[in-house]
Amino acid sequence: MFHNRMPRYDVLSEDAMATLDRGWRRLLTEVGIEFMSDRALDLFRAAGQRVEDNTVFLDPDFVLEQVAKAPREFDIQARNPDNTVHIGGNAMAFGAVYGPPFVREGEVRRDATMNDFRNFTKLAQGFGVLDSAGGVICEPNDTPLDSRHLDMTYALMTLTDKIYMGNVVSGGNAADTIAMSEILLGGRDSIEQTPACISLINCNSPLRWDDRMLDAQFEYSAAGQPVVLTPFLLMGAMSPVTIPAALVQQIAEALSGITLSQLIRPGAPVVFGSFLSNIDMQSGSPTFGTPESAMGLLCTGQIARHFGLPFRTGGGLTSSQVSDAQAGYEALMTLLPTFLAGANWVMHSAGWLEGGLVAGYEKFIVDAQILEMLQHEFTPLEITEESLAFGAHEEVGHGGHFLGAMHTMERFRTCFYRPFLNSSDNYERWMRGGAVDTTGRASALWRKRLEEYEQPPLDDGIRAELEDYVNRRRTELGD
Amino acid sequence: MFHNRMPRYDVLSEDAMATLDRGWRRLLTEVGIEFMSDRALDLFRAAGQRVEDNTVFLDPDFVLEQVAKAPREFDIQARNPDNTVHIGGNAMAFGAVYGPPFVREGEVRRDATMNDFRNFTKLAQGFGVLDSAGGVICEPNDTPLDSRHLDMTYALMTLTDKIYMGNVVSGGNAADTIAMSEILLGGRDSIEQTPACISLINCNSPLRWDDRMLDAQFEYSAAGQPVVLTPFLLMGAMSPVTIPAALVQQIAEALSGITLSQLIRPGAPVVFGSFLSNIDMQSGSPTFGTPESAMGLLCTGQIARHFGLPFRTGGGLTSSQVSDAQAGYEALMTLLPTFLAGANWVMHSAGWLEGGLVAGYEKFIVDAQILEMLQHEFTPLEITEESLAFGAHEEVGHGGHFLGAMHTMERFRTCFYRPFLNSSDNYERWMRGGAVDTTGRASALWRKRLEEYEQPPLDDGIRAELEDYVNRRRTELGD
Repeated sequence: MFHNRMPRYDVLSEDAMATLDRGWRRLLTEVGIEFMSDRALDLFRAAGQRVEDNTVFLDPDFVLEQVAKAPREFDIQARNPDNTVHIGGNAMAFGAVYGPPFVREGEVRRDATMNDFRNFTKLAQGFGVLDSAGGVICEPNDTPLDSRHLDMTYALMTLTDKIYMGNVVSGGNAADTIAMSEILLGGRDSIEQTPACISLINCNSPLRWDDRMLDAQFEYSAAGQPVVLTPFLLMGAMSPVTIPAALVQQIAEALSGITLSQLIRPGAPVVFGSFLSNIDMQSGSPTFGTPESAMGLLCTGQIARHFGLPFRTGGGLTSSQVSDAQAGYEALMTLLPTFLAGANWVMHSAGWLEGGLVAGYEKFIVDAQILEMLQHEFTPLEITEESLAFGAHEEVGHGGHFLGAMHTMERFRTCFYRPFLNSSDNYERWMRGGAVDTTGRASALWRKRLEEYEQPPLDDGIRAELEDYVNRRRTELGD
Repeated sequence: MFHNRMPRYDVLSEDAMATLDRGWRRLLTEVGIEFMSDRALDLFRAAGQRVEDNTVFLDPDFVLEQVAKAPREFDIQARNPDNTVHIGGNAMAFGAVYGPPFVREGEVRRDATMNDFRNFTKLAQGFGVLDSAGGVICEPNDTPLDSRHLDMTYALMTLTDKIYMGNVVSGGNAADTIAMSEILLGGRDSIEQTPACISLINCNSPLRWDDRMLDAQFEYSAAGQPVVLTPFLLMGAMSPVTIPAALVQQIAEALSGITLSQLIRPGAPVVFGSFLSNIDMQSGSPTFGTPESAMGLLCTGQIARHFGLPFRTGGGLTSSQVSDAQAGYEALMTLLPTFLAGANWVMHSAGWLEGGLVAGYEKFIVDAQILEMLQHEFTPLEITEESLAFGAHEEVGHGGHFLGAMHTMERFRTCFYRPFLNSSDNYERWMRGGAVDTTGRASALWRKRLEEYEQPPLDDGIRAELEDYVNRRRTELGD
């Protein structure tokens, strides 16, 4: 996996951080957070926090005590040990887009299906830059609602040998994910020792955690499986329109969720989550890849480190409807700051289109290309006497060229990163090749990658046990 | 103009910088630099440097003494004082693409004409993010070679009231630019006091400065007009394939050119130039927006500051043939590091396509959009108690929304940057609007901008004098 050994780009002064610190403390103390779960309220009450109706008024110092119990770094095991992922420190792990109800292939936009879900999962397996297919890569609308989490989890477990995300639609779904993880990875002890999946718990921002997500959080945290506590902030709608206000709210919400996980199970692995952008104030549409979201992202990294927590943010976000120039620069406008901030868990890394409503096949390839470029870009230079290639200058002299120099000949195969999607063909060659633009090349590439897909081997007994579990639970759920 | 008050992203350690320092010193001392100009060789000889044939072996300490004579910052005056530009410090100035022989509008790629040149100049006048139309925005192939610099300079001076670049094809062309600048800006004293134009002097890398560019440099430096001494490095062709070697060569070349300017006129304004990317080692094609070029750019900023010099690098570079996703992310892959490095003079900021062979109308709009986004992104947050909007949280509470909050209502017009090109329309609205992608929208926008163009006022006497000069010189040049 990728380790980002480049410097972090910090943008907040000590004064600014102190102001933000005062802000979240005041918000938790005076406005509090709603938890729509009696179990959660009972835990907070038992821990001595003031609870009124569903609102918990949290003592900031108590919160920091709980936060200090969370591990700063942890592993998530994959069934192929080579794909085990480290979360925290300078490690950066990347998962595909999460949640879109629609897909786009070329000019066609349509409802996502289970076949699309499997396709994207296979594509994710084939790209080394992705550490995970993610979770709900797209919503398989052609499968029954109550049991589709079983089909998705089974697909993630069998079509890839990478880590996967847990289902969070309900506590029951979470329990299913955990049970299937136990089958896949050698039982409860194994997954309690090294977690098996990572799950997204979104806040119903502002300042409310809803019951279904909390039920899922209870399951995962109790089982020692990491959860990503994520304020869901589109400034102007779910938070005030000023970035500092959104940052304060983000801290208050994330830390309150993290505190709950520590009350459920002290030491439960957690991730400081961030999903922070803004709406267009004229249309109300969510917008992505904006200057405000990039600034928020950079601040978020610094804030998460301030609390000693691994953090999630970033991705190849865009509002664009198709995989065009806007999609390219908006995706990078988020992904490059993602690397500058050193995000530890990056959801929506590949395939995000149209504000997250669409999983795009071509966009998936575009994003995978951008990720590869960034992983090369964020690899520190080694500057040694030898790297200065003085001998090459002695050989070539003035006004010559280095194409045939010994120094070049020894290195030409590996000296530069070679992109798989970008074209630098000259015009004549490009025309002869049919004048295919990036989206056209991406379209050919994802089809080729799907054809070349090879399913990673899985023990027959485990596969059968997973199938039995899925079939039994499907029947129980009435589907 | 834009001042980048965000932190710089420095990536070189002190050790690394010391290694690079040893490298350029050795290169200048042992391999030396070729100057294809007797005047230049005479100056170096007179200053006590060892000269053999056309090669000058430079004493590194002598070089640093000369470099120290260059101003760290300076202004370039525009005929509209509001558009006067500062070069150096945290100021960043942006000019359009420079040099393409072809243009692209939509699906059509063709030879550039003087009409295209005027169109791009008008577009540059209309975008506040651009401080200059640049110089040779495109090569007007339908005008006579010997006198086209007169037409271009006249267009830059009359169609915009922003700063412009000087012609560098020959010493005579440079003298013409200076003479026309004297007419435009109130005489020789005026432009010697505050320079009137900035000119690009490219090195014929590796390690050679050619006669025609040197002749232009002599003219400009003697007149106190800034020159951008730019190593032209496509790693693998004009430099070794290792980035540290390219950086050392870049320092040696740039400092040698800067030294010459100081010998021509001590204190002459100069800019440390960088044009650093790599070729595709399989095809030999130049490639842009690469991880290697981004890393080189970040290092270059740090190196230029190490020498206390304003620097030029960056731009919206791409290898892409059209204004597609690749063009979008490659452009930003250079432009975002341009801001991180705090480049002072940014050529090729708008319109660059196909490795610089094509000036793209749609790409011009895409780049202007990216520049606006980046200028907003690189504006520091103000984090005050008031910005935390505590009252908005008291008003909205838990699970509500901020759309109608007082805090929002007071700020909704200006709280977020509003893009002019990006679409965040929902799918239905986007389809009703004709499902136009970014390139399509850019195509409509540049036509609209050209229609809306208004020529900035110019004194009739000055205009007549400029016309007389152009006509007289055209006749003298036999065109």
